[in-house]
Amino acid sequence: MDALLVGPGADLRYLVDHEAPPLERLTLLLVPREGEPALVLPQLEAPLAAEAGAHAELLAWSETQDPVAMVVDRLRETGAHRGTLAVQDRLWTMFTLALQEALPEARWVPGSRVMRELRLRKEPGEIAALHAAGAAIDHVHAQVPELLRAGRTEREVAADLDALIREDHDVVNFVIVGSGPNGASPHHEAGSRRLEKGDAVVIDIGGTRAGYCSDMTRDYVVGHEPYGYGALHQVLETAQQAAVDAVAPGVTAEAIDVAARRVIEEAGYGDQFIHRTGHGIGIEEHEEPWIVAGNDLVLEAGMAFSVEPGIYVPDRYGSRIEDIVVVTETGVERCNHRPRHAIVC
Amino acid sequence: MDALLVGPGADLRYLVDHEAPPLERLTLLLVPREGEPALVLPQLEAPLAAEAGAHAELLAWSETQDPVAMVVDRLRETGAHRGTLAVQDRLWTMFTLALQEALPEARWVPGSRVMRELRLRKEPGEIAALHAAGAAIDHVHAQVPELLRAGRTEREVAADLDALIREDHDVVNFVIVGSGPNGASPHHEAGSRRLEKGDAVVIDIGGTRAGYCSDMTRDYVVGHEPYGYGALHQVLETAQQAAVDAVAPGVTAEAIDVAARRVIEEAGYGDQFIHRTGHGIGIEEHEEPWIVAGNDLVLEAGMAFSVEPGIYVPDRYGSRIEDIVVVTETGVERCNHRPRHAIVC
Repeated sequence: MDALLVGPGADLRYLVDHEAPPLERLTLLLVPREGEPALVLPQLEAPLAAEAGAHAELLAWSETQDPVAMVVDRLRETGAHRGTLAVQDRLWTMFTLALQEALPEARWVPGSRVMRELRLRKEPGEIAALHAAGAAIDHVHAQVPELLRAGRTEREVAADLDALIREDHDVVNFVIVGSGPNGASPHHEAGSRRLEKGDAVVIDIGGTRAGYCSDMTRDYVVGHEPYGYGALHQVLETAQQAAVDAVAPGVTAEAIDVAARRVIEEAGYGDQFIHRTGHGIGIEEHEEPWIVAGNDLVLEAGMAFSVEPGIYVPDRYGSRIEDIVVVTETGVERCNHRPRHAIVC
Repeated sequence: MDALLVGPGADLRYLVDHEAPPLERLTLLLVPREGEPALVLPQLEAPLAAEAGAHAELLAWSETQDPVAMVVDRLRETGAHRGTLAVQDRLWTMFTLALQEALPEARWVPGSRVMRELRLRKEPGEIAALHAAGAAIDHVHAQVPELLRAGRTEREVAADLDALIREDHDVVNFVIVGSGPNGASPHHEAGSRRLEKGDAVVIDIGGTRAGYCSDMTRDYVVGHEPYGYGALHQVLETAQQAAVDAVAPGVTAEAIDVAARRVIEEAGYGDQFIHRTGHGIGIEEHEEPWIVAGNDLVLEAGMAFSVEPGIYVPDRYGSRIEDIVVVTETGVERCNHRPRHAIVC
């Protein structure tokens, strides 16, 4: 590749420690194969970038300049304008189409080909940050039983969780309170439904603390378990443990998915485990590696991801257990340590 | 164009009333030139989309299916796979590159060529929603004088504003508290600086209420005006009024920018007005039309945008006055009505 082009987002933070807002005005870091990186950015963002000490030469454009032309000029200096350009995965397509039109001789490849190698294996400081975020979200889950009472709405519970997460995180990334039948939709957030006695409740919460993400799911029941839930949850606990036990350097990502799925399938719930087993985590809540069938990526020490099998019974309830784990030289460490059984509130 | 491809975000909400999370898993609405639209989405998002009544046929893909192949198959049915495809401006580049690789015969153009025509001229219900959002943020600004006292940090003031905005908005989009020298950076948000007597403070706040955005800036001073600020602010008020007065159907967008800039330049502050005069607003806080030099778009009834000139004095203070305005058949209406002079707190 001849240059890497990176817009606002996690990759930019990772590379030059600059938090740029995603705007219709182009901000783009150019990292040539050789030479110094340059950050093309709107003039009105330049003071903040300079103050934050972004690790790149700043090329500010005024409201009447064409930022794409600035990018083209800069790439031309190194000949990269007719080479292979890696574009950040999440750059808005409007910018990529404008660049493609202005650079008809270039070849375009996904920026993740560069970034994944950098971000996939966490350094010791990053792993410590993931453990600290894990401890912070463990502490929030410890307080969940006080929040779940029949008559409260999911949204009320979510507002309390939001405040609790904020106590030891910088940002709340999501709060899922899936009560009763709502728990059967894995990405249901929180609605107006009131908790009832006999509800199972899926609580999946996460935030960002010192730049690294937490993400943890536990199941609760209000008053007593609904019919059939106990046996199902026992299977899920066994499946999650089997998947965590399978994690080690040298094992493939899909083998972790298989370990969880086999337990659930053998118990007859296979059709109800409708998502992959996990996703990587770090400076973003979802990043590589994907713990999914078909991913033959070989795990290495320093990789971090969620292990979160779930079983979903439409119109009745859902269940999911999620911990973040880190691959070590010899096996695996969890970042979350709260009990994994369904807690009666 | 043979088809429009739209991922998660405002365009998707606008077209099919579906709020999809931006994920590494592809969600993509396919709108063929003729025939019914289809929404390709991850299986685990399908229950929410069905429940929300998204106005499109749902094509759910499971974790082991290739969603790009599903898109290609669908486009092939109408022959659009070798035609011109308009891609939503903000779709992540990773998806566009994958689609380009899978559809080498297609021609790619920005989705805004379609969407801008739909979103640029607001319908009466949309204009009513903008006025309602404007009234809600007016009410927050009315309470700002109670919040600004020497000794408080910007962040404390911002937290109060966040709570006040939330009272009559569904989402808080941004809270800028630029005190003293921090006001000189237009996109400074809120930091640890404590307000001091003699500070000028720029308060720029906005949220989303019933799907439409508010965005409003006023200036305040703590105790008394800093030296030189009174004369500067008088110029700014005149400039903002001149720009609003210039708004009418048949006038170009850049003419509004010129109207504000001329007043500021003639008063000798031209170098200190470092951004465009405004941006469109609607279901997004920043959308077309851009009120900027070089934009010869002719304004029409129903267009809505901010008019927000500013003057910035590095190391000392900033100032900005912002109202949302709507072009009417005969002229212009403001959505914000609070006084525009700097209010002494």
